[in-house]
Amino acid sequence: MPPFSREVHLIERPVGLPNETQFKIVSTVVPDVGVGEILVKNLYMSVDPYMRPRLSAQTELDTPMTGAAIGRVAQSRHSGFSEGDYVVSACGFREYFLATGSNALQAVRKLDPDGMPLTTYLGPLGNTGITAYGGLLVIGAMQDGERVFVSAAAGAVGSTAVQIAKIKGCHVVGSAGSNEKCEWIKNELRADAVINYKKENIHEALKTAAPDGIDVYFENVGSEHLNAALANMRALGRIPVCGMISSYNNEGTLSDPITALFRMIYGRITMRGFVSYEFESLRPRFLDDMKGWIRQGKMKYRETIVVGIEHAPAALIGLFKGDNIGKMIVQLAAE
Amino acid sequence: MPPFSREVHLIERPVGLPNETQFKIVSTVVPDVGVGEILVKNLYMSVDPYMRPRLSAQTELDTPMTGAAIGRVAQSRHSGFSEGDYVVSACGFREYFLATGSNALQAVRKLDPDGMPLTTYLGPLGNTGITAYGGLLVIGAMQDGERVFVSAAAGAVGSTAVQIAKIKGCHVVGSAGSNEKCEWIKNELRADAVINYKKENIHEALKTAAPDGIDVYFENVGSEHLNAALANMRALGRIPVCGMISSYNNEGTLSDPITALFRMIYGRITMRGFVSYEFESLRPRFLDDMKGWIRQGKMKYRETIVVGIEHAPAALIGLFKGDNIGKMIVQLAAE
Repeated sequence: MPPFSREVHLIERPVGLPNETQFKIVSTVVPDVGVGEILVKNLYMSVDPYMRPRLSAQTELDTPMTGAAIGRVAQSRHSGFSEGDYVVSACGFREYFLATGSNALQAVRKLDPDGMPLTTYLGPLGNTGITAYGGLLVIGAMQDGERVFVSAAAGAVGSTAVQIAKIKGCHVVGSAGSNEKCEWIKNELRADAVINYKKENIHEALKTAAPDGIDVYFENVGSEHLNAALANMRALGRIPVCGMISSYNNEGTLSDPITALFRMIYGRITMRGFVSYEFESLRPRFLDDMKGWIRQGKMKYRETIVVGIEHAPAALIGLFKGDNIGKMIVQLAAE
Repeated sequence: MPPFSREVHLIERPVGLPNETQFKIVSTVVPDVGVGEILVKNLYMSVDPYMRPRLSAQTELDTPMTGAAIGRVAQSRHSGFSEGDYVVSACGFREYFLATGSNALQAVRKLDPDGMPLTTYLGPLGNTGITAYGGLLVIGAMQDGERVFVSAAAGAVGSTAVQIAKIKGCHVVGSAGSNEKCEWIKNELRADAVINYKKENIHEALKTAAPDGIDVYFENVGSEHLNAALANMRALGRIPVCGMISSYNNEGTLSDPITALFRMIYGRITMRGFVSYEFESLRPRFLDDMKGWIRQGKMKYRETIVVGIEHAPAALIGLFKGDNIGKMIVQLAAE
């Protein structure tokens, strides 16, 4: 075992867009493995927009940050795990971690890659995928053939949502902030229409792209995207609220005034916030569906992979600058 | 029959708070009653906040406005109605109206007062009451004993909602904009706590009034009320959206920036807009419950009655100045 493991600490709470000086890479001694414990070497970790609001409140200062990670058991003194086993955990932002008896069972899940690349278990086959799946099918109660709008459609969750909606025969409109992203959404993800929100008026573009209105708006952004969606929702429309990235670097305040929330009333529209852990009971069905779609070529994904834990803060910050297409992943060690 | 009936037309669409010059009182000839038709003399009509957004769009110019009214059949050539029958219709804003065969059956409902004052059928026993009832019990899925926040709690719908929640054993917080209203909510409607939003910080006051948070926020206002409610919602909380009066004279834009909508995500909070006509199938049960509560003294109501159709525009405008306690009604003729 190496004597040291590096980990990422938050050392100062950001106001607005975070910067790298608010994070610190800390070296710690890798502890000895006691009876009933396992030592995991992380290979890949996820950085996600949801992490930003936590930096303002829940994330503890001067302790390792948390997030989804894929690792390999480097040493095991637990009967349920063997050296070399792959595991999924919420213990990202560190190169090694020790899982003690209780959290080894609770927070670390053994992973059978089943022939799929390991990183897909952070993306379409991981919480990213089940977020899109449960958000559309459970929270959004999306029906085959409906009209669906997905914001941040080149992001990890958004790009998965676009494709699930297409697989279900929906008319899908996606939005993103660059031509390259828009082309990917249209040409590869097969969205019916795409909106470059940096160049187009979202309201007008959405009206053109979905002249009969929207049944389901998969909300990742807030602000003008939400206004435009509300103004174009059909009666009894649903808005699963996955994220509101436009508020994350603004202390929760949406960056544009909200002009159309009253439309919920006559439209009898539902907005519902949700978190992926609500869909745990769906996971077996989700994995079956998603593996099938990937193998059939119906579910594409892209990854933006940054190598080295020292780049994790920059990777996280990059999410808010539109740096990523698809899933942003930090590779911590070679497979 | 009198030769003339007065009616209220909108002649110019308001921007911001309406003023009386945008309305006109027009005299029309009362038509002859043909076979299969009835002539209704309106006695009372309702003015309600929901009418304001309609003035900006749906309400037709230079035609009689619409709204709930209680009338008496003045002349009938329809086998289903007799002279003297009381009826409820959506044909307010006029002293008389002719119901032709089809709309006599569709838009005019015979009313058995069942010993209750006629005006209660515009208030707690009418759409006002069923809006509060269905909004809390169906859309809000309110459970006995939950923590409930009602904004505009001295209004017609709000004051009914406060009392339904109290009848169901809930801890109820109400807000209003004057001491007189707040005293009524606390002393007569028996709310557990009351917030004068013109004098208090709603966030702080709500935290004090409901330290364990809010399960159901009955939304009538929007803006800072919505921010405060979202910041104090418990996990899996529900926000039935009945109205957003803070946006009505602002072309739909909420008067304050929205700072807490992202809290829907981790809170897994549901917001759902609704309209009273969704609850039609509930009406028999609603009437049974509500008549019982009124007779038992558990459901109090106040009315602000303005006499004469020529004052209808001022009465409507008054809703946005806080002129009314309880239900705002215009009396068009003596009973």
